[in-house]
Amino acid sequence: MKMRIIETISEMRKVQKEWRENGESIGLVPTMGYLHEGHLSLIAEAKKRCSKVVMSLFVNPLQFGPTEDFERYPRDMERDSQLANESGVDIIFAPSVAEMYPHKMKTTVVVSEITDTLCGASRPGHFDGVATVVSKLFHIVQPDFAFFGQKDAQQVAVIKQMVDDLNMPLEIIPCPIVREPDGLAKSSRNVYLSEEARKQAVVLSRSLKQAEADYQQGLQPGEIKERAMSLIKTQPLADIDYVELLTYPSLKPLEKFNGQPFILALAVRFGDTRLIDNKIFS
Amino acid sequence: MKMRIIETISEMRKVQKEWRENGESIGLVPTMGYLHEGHLSLIAEAKKRCSKVVMSLFVNPLQFGPTEDFERYPRDMERDSQLANESGVDIIFAPSVAEMYPHKMKTTVVVSEITDTLCGASRPGHFDGVATVVSKLFHIVQPDFAFFGQKDAQQVAVIKQMVDDLNMPLEIIPCPIVREPDGLAKSSRNVYLSEEARKQAVVLSRSLKQAEADYQQGLQPGEIKERAMSLIKTQPLADIDYVELLTYPSLKPLEKFNGQPFILALAVRFGDTRLIDNKIFS
Repeated sequence: MKMRIIETISEMRKVQKEWRENGESIGLVPTMGYLHEGHLSLIAEAKKRCSKVVMSLFVNPLQFGPTEDFERYPRDMERDSQLANESGVDIIFAPSVAEMYPHKMKTTVVVSEITDTLCGASRPGHFDGVATVVSKLFHIVQPDFAFFGQKDAQQVAVIKQMVDDLNMPLEIIPCPIVREPDGLAKSSRNVYLSEEARKQAVVLSRSLKQAEADYQQGLQPGEIKERAMSLIKTQPLADIDYVELLTYPSLKPLEKFNGQPFILALAVRFGDTRLIDNKIFS
Repeated sequence: MKMRIIETISEMRKVQKEWRENGESIGLVPTMGYLHEGHLSLIAEAKKRCSKVVMSLFVNPLQFGPTEDFERYPRDMERDSQLANESGVDIIFAPSVAEMYPHKMKTTVVVSEITDTLCGASRPGHFDGVATVVSKLFHIVQPDFAFFGQKDAQQVAVIKQMVDDLNMPLEIIPCPIVREPDGLAKSSRNVYLSEEARKQAVVLSRSLKQAEADYQQGLQPGEIKERAMSLIKTQPLADIDYVELLTYPSLKPLEKFNGQPFILALAVRFGDTRLIDNKIFS
């Protein structure tokens, strides 16, 4: 069957119902489009586990702050549908903003505590917007599995918490970060980077590698974090938003290693472009 | 088939899945137990529309304030299961608090604006607790229809708003208020009333009847509300929490009638017992 692009909720529900009646298993890969190899790895994982794969493509205004890049967020539907088709996506669900938000929303899904830090602290309201739209997508597509990139590690923690707390009938599958040959984590926002910033941005993954070595050598959380910050600061265009070493997925401060999994999470601005990266140690 | 009582989420999911595979339609009647004819009318409506009926029975601590009656809320599982069985309920889903909240919840479903008034104003956090637990029940039972009594008119408005905003795949069916012969709305809390308070409590429905006549005679919202309050105040044990005339279901103040549906909503304390009642004019 050829890939279809569906723009309305009612049509998506119709297909979902048919699939259910035919006993299909459904995988959802939520994206904001402008696909890169990170997205394609999520689709590949979905294809492995499910007989039908829906990729949603929706740049969600709710999760962007008033000063953020909603308007200029990169979009390329033609290229995205070609890539999705080649990757074996069955349906692109690409609703308009008016289709998803026909009237002012009064309902918000709020995940507390784990959203107090990292991107939750830097981007107030961001995770309310994420949890709310993902909740809507889950209710529309009703997948058995949904696939999220571990690059947005806090997002994965938030979505898993929501699914668990609200007993949503699906499983969240986090997928590993996909990187450029020089180590930069793939991101739709990488296209914003100037040539010089692109070169310097490799410092994010380098600082994570350094942290890994530091951890192997027995350094403590405070030292590891300090050394990551110092390394990032060697790059003149790098403007640190946060460098945090926290328990994962509970995202609490970690003074001393105690066998719990933890995350080193980075957000660094290069001019107008904010990049994130992380490594989970478990 | 005999009625079953299910206490675990996993068992409820198993039955739900079997029903789905057999093409059954599923109705959910969420209750806090201590059934009265109001609940039974919801079950009867569910039986009409659905081939399988689940009645959930869960006194949800999340929707009670710290000074409210969670502990003393009336419970009678034996009587409830007998009544449910006689009414044709297929499954009572009666999870424990630990089953529903195995760890501290970090996720809350918040419905704003329409919760700023009436019981939302009198009972801070109440509707967060309601929306969150109902969202959980919907995800566990995955019904096609869910049935709620119009006595909790604001609750109906909140649940409908949530279902609509979050695209939950089910339909909410509000059912009319069921009353005692003298007009008092059926409520599990009526058992709290002293003999004297029980007599005086009939003033709630009487004030709604008076409002209906007032409206027919062309009185304005302010006058209708004032006259309802005055009538309630004739009863010495009655302590008014609120008497409000608002648009419905948007629950905004109404200065002048303009053809919009509206509600006269009452909450009145008799000693420790808080009763609510309402009439929707459409």
